[in-house]
Amino acid sequence: MSVLVVGSTALDSIKTPWRENPRLLGGSASHAAVAASFFAPVKLVGVVGEDFPRRYLALYRREGVDLAGLQIAAGKTFHWAGEYEVNMHNRRTLKTELGVFESFTPELPEKYRRTPFVLLANIAPALQHRVLDQMRRPKLIVADTMDLWLNIALEDLLTLLRRIDVFVLNDSEARQLTKENNVIRAAKKIHRLGPKYVIVKKGEHGAILSSPGGLFVSPAFPLSEVVDPTGAGDSFVGGLIGYLASRNGPIETNLKRGMIYGSVVASFCCEGFGLSRTTKITRAAIEKRVGELEKIVRF
Amino acid sequence: MSVLVVGSTALDSIKTPWRENPRLLGGSASHAAVAASFFAPVKLVGVVGEDFPRRYLALYRREGVDLAGLQIAAGKTFHWAGEYEVNMHNRRTLKTELGVFESFTPELPEKYRRTPFVLLANIAPALQHRVLDQMRRPKLIVADTMDLWLNIALEDLLTLLRRIDVFVLNDSEARQLTKENNVIRAAKKIHRLGPKYVIVKKGEHGAILSSPGGLFVSPAFPLSEVVDPTGAGDSFVGGLIGYLASRNGPIETNLKRGMIYGSVVASFCCEGFGLSRTTKITRAAIEKRVGELEKIVRF
Repeated sequence: MSVLVVGSTALDSIKTPWRENPRLLGGSASHAAVAASFFAPVKLVGVVGEDFPRRYLALYRREGVDLAGLQIAAGKTFHWAGEYEVNMHNRRTLKTELGVFESFTPELPEKYRRTPFVLLANIAPALQHRVLDQMRRPKLIVADTMDLWLNIALEDLLTLLRRIDVFVLNDSEARQLTKENNVIRAAKKIHRLGPKYVIVKKGEHGAILSSPGGLFVSPAFPLSEVVDPTGAGDSFVGGLIGYLASRNGPIETNLKRGMIYGSVVASFCCEGFGLSRTTKITRAAIEKRVGELEKIVRF
Repeated sequence: MSVLVVGSTALDSIKTPWRENPRLLGGSASHAAVAASFFAPVKLVGVVGEDFPRRYLALYRREGVDLAGLQIAAGKTFHWAGEYEVNMHNRRTLKTELGVFESFTPELPEKYRRTPFVLLANIAPALQHRVLDQMRRPKLIVADTMDLWLNIALEDLLTLLRRIDVFVLNDSEARQLTKENNVIRAAKKIHRLGPKYVIVKKGEHGAILSSPGGLFVSPAFPLSEVVDPTGAGDSFVGGLIGYLASRNGPIETNLKRGMIYGSVVASFCCEGFGLSRTTKITRAAIEKRVGELEKIVRF
């Protein structure tokens, strides 16, 4: 089954202590769409400016991403510039130029509206709402977020939580949202806000699923070198929903394996700048790492 | 088979945002010995002062810990006082009174010297050396450490690393020792310093084993409440070596399961002040949590 992905489509200028790469293809929807495309057909919803490089459109198409929902608007593409510290974990934003994103209103082509799997990748909750408003009875809705929306759009986010099935956020966001230091307790509190399934991402430490069936702890794929972690969380949710859309069977089982697949795609993402590594891998390479992860946690 | 444990035997005064408990039984050897005692007979090496409460000696004995190697010296027992922040992770030392520990020289009773499994729990590397000097061909040597020794006794620690089989340290110590941010790369560097097996502890995020057979990622048992994490790392290594001493078969397989058992004992340790919770559990309670951990990581 197919997956609809809405989120940011951006140009990322990324600086690490060792290298600098300007205007890479980035944004939550770009990473998530490419990650999901390994498993299922993907329909993209987003906006870019007239400056958006044609080669990036070609890249989406090469991955089989449907671009009928990608608006090309007068103005500049959303541009983010950031710099990582030596630990490749802490980062600071150098520049945020919203460009055409400032006035973006997602409009879904008719053929998108019955897509069974919906990923509301990181974007303003009001826009995530707007996409859901246009959907006709999706089978499963996954939403991601970021600390910014907890700070400036909390009400919109809280109403969104009542409309979705799976909520994905990182550990510091879970703490901020619930004012609870312990992530297990934080996850339980988030269920009360709506989502049946809560996934707390912990970066290199993996992720935790809290569900009616209990807890599941997913390891991160151990990497001895991180080139650029930008988009790892988006790749994780993209891989997750792509895998879910490709499977029948009980949702909880699929969610667990989906997190493993998401972790693996995220690991590839970290091994190159922007999408440079992710777009070079194959499904077979993903399966190989899934097999390694199975071995790595077996006792 | 039996386990020799050397380390600190102390009185801990522990303050959390919610409670304060003075002069609890603590120290690396106390936590490790009690943890190991669930699986194998334990011989303790350490020193306490004349002020050491008799009820704590009775507690060791109740757990079946052999005290022939515990010196009772003129003076005061080592006393540590510390305070945890609200996140129950960051802590600061309020007081360190070495007392009889200042002039401690481990002397092993003759019957201790052929103990097959040796745990050099956290203590000055010179004392860890001194214990090894007195041992006759142990089967397996596990050593733990802390940042203090990296700062003030690095040379002793480096020579120790060439004498041991399994080195256990936490992630920040691994980074400090190797000047390497990535823990996977740090572990690989530590092998070159001597130990065939390197275990990097990551607290609530579990632990990683690096061995000739590859990597193993052990989850921490998810806790929704941490009362006092003091001694969790010591409980982990104690449970680990106790389990190893109780099993035949290939060391790598046993190390993996040993880490799981260590994580479980550590989880109980965190649920009470000092040793209050650990000393109340049974082997059956441990097995139950091991079973839950198996379920929690299965996909």
